[in-house]
Amino acid sequence: MQESSPRKRVTIKRLPERAAYDRETVYQILDAGMVAHVSFLDHGQPCVIPTLYVRLDDYLYLHGSPASRMLRVLQQGGPVCIAVTLIDGLVLARSAFHHSMNYRSVVVCGTGAVVENPDRKAAVLRQLSEHIIPGRWEDVRQPSEDELRRTLVVSIQIEDASAKIRTGPPKDDEADYELPMWAGIVPLRLAAGVPVADPRLRPGLEPPPYASDYQGPRPAPEG
Amino acid sequence: MQESSPRKRVTIKRLPERAAYDRETVYQILDAGMVAHVSFLDHGQPCVIPTLYVRLDDYLYLHGSPASRMLRVLQQGGPVCIAVTLIDGLVLARSAFHHSMNYRSVVVCGTGAVVENPDRKAAVLRQLSEHIIPGRWEDVRQPSEDELRRTLVVSIQIEDASAKIRTGPPKDDEADYELPMWAGIVPLRLAAGVPVADPRLRPGLEPPPYASDYQGPRPAPEG
Repeated sequence: MQESSPRKRVTIKRLPERAAYDRETVYQILDAGMVAHVSFLDHGQPCVIPTLYVRLDDYLYLHGSPASRMLRVLQQGGPVCIAVTLIDGLVLARSAFHHSMNYRSVVVCGTGAVVENPDRKAAVLRQLSEHIIPGRWEDVRQPSEDELRRTLVVSIQIEDASAKIRTGPPKDDEADYELPMWAGIVPLRLAAGVPVADPRLRPGLEPPPYASDYQGPRPAPEG
Repeated sequence: MQESSPRKRVTIKRLPERAAYDRETVYQILDAGMVAHVSFLDHGQPCVIPTLYVRLDDYLYLHGSPASRMLRVLQQGGPVCIAVTLIDGLVLARSAFHHSMNYRSVVVCGTGAVVENPDRKAAVLRQLSEHIIPGRWEDVRQPSEDELRRTLVVSIQIEDASAKIRTGPPKDDEADYELPMWAGIVPLRLAAGVPVADPRLRPGLEPPPYASDYQGPRPAPEG
């Protein structure tokens, strides 16, 4: 990732005070997200598809069926742009005009490449799982050779990236602060509910702590 | 929107049992979402940007600064692809391979056009506000002529669209149902917290019910 000199593709022109390019900020947001929106070209048309992902070092990894249109474009090395957006709250100002959202978002540009090595594929899938549901991987049946063959894993080197963040209270026009309406933030977050057991669950099995007290994505473990 | 014959751009090739094309399904998902990811071309490169939106009839509406790169491309009539994704839960299967997510997503393809008429712009902005925070618009200072001038509103006719939905428990390989690990769903939803007052709030103002009991986006009102 080009830390000190963001390239033109993702330089943020609007509200530059909300923009941040340092690697740590970008990676923190990517590591806290679950779903990425992947933009690619299909016969010259822009397309966008949501998908799970994990960041490892300077790469994002996606996975899916070898028949996936998106992954097929990516494995051919087509240009790709990926957004991860975390919604933190609604910003209620005194004027309609200054209403906003608090959010953290990252846009990454890069090109795709296939991860061919089966051991590497298995390692990436484990880290993807540990990113989304930390602790789950060790509890489940591991992928068979056939399942690994039927899973396409694509890496995208983070060639350039930018973060955009809004936090804090509304910013109203000075004259509007005298107006008599409530203003502030409605916090929002992706919250987990009580786990729902599979109807075919074997009797006597309780949800593990990572399910009953799910706390959201975590940075992928090392290795 | 082409209801009965989805056009090729957004025909879902993977897991077609998860695909739905009827207008009601597509509109229900769009009306329950808050942030869209908009994919467009900038000098031939795919780009994707998150933004608020509202659906009215067969159109999606976006708004922002006239200096926005995305809106500039859209107002020139460039092709655009828009995804709205609602995350409903994590699907914990007995095998790593069959882990999944429950979600509802819509992908819309279309082309942009500017909404020039100030009255129409104001109406769209009101409906956008009512979609995101029902009840707020009447409480706040309305946009001035200057603020309307400084707001670009772009419409995208929903030329074709498709929905993709996964619900329900994991689907494991038959042999795996005997395995002794927990399986089921961890429900997820975008949840609101307790409102945080602006530090400059006038004394004695309490958060209105639409803020203290925020229930998420709603279909835009008529008119």
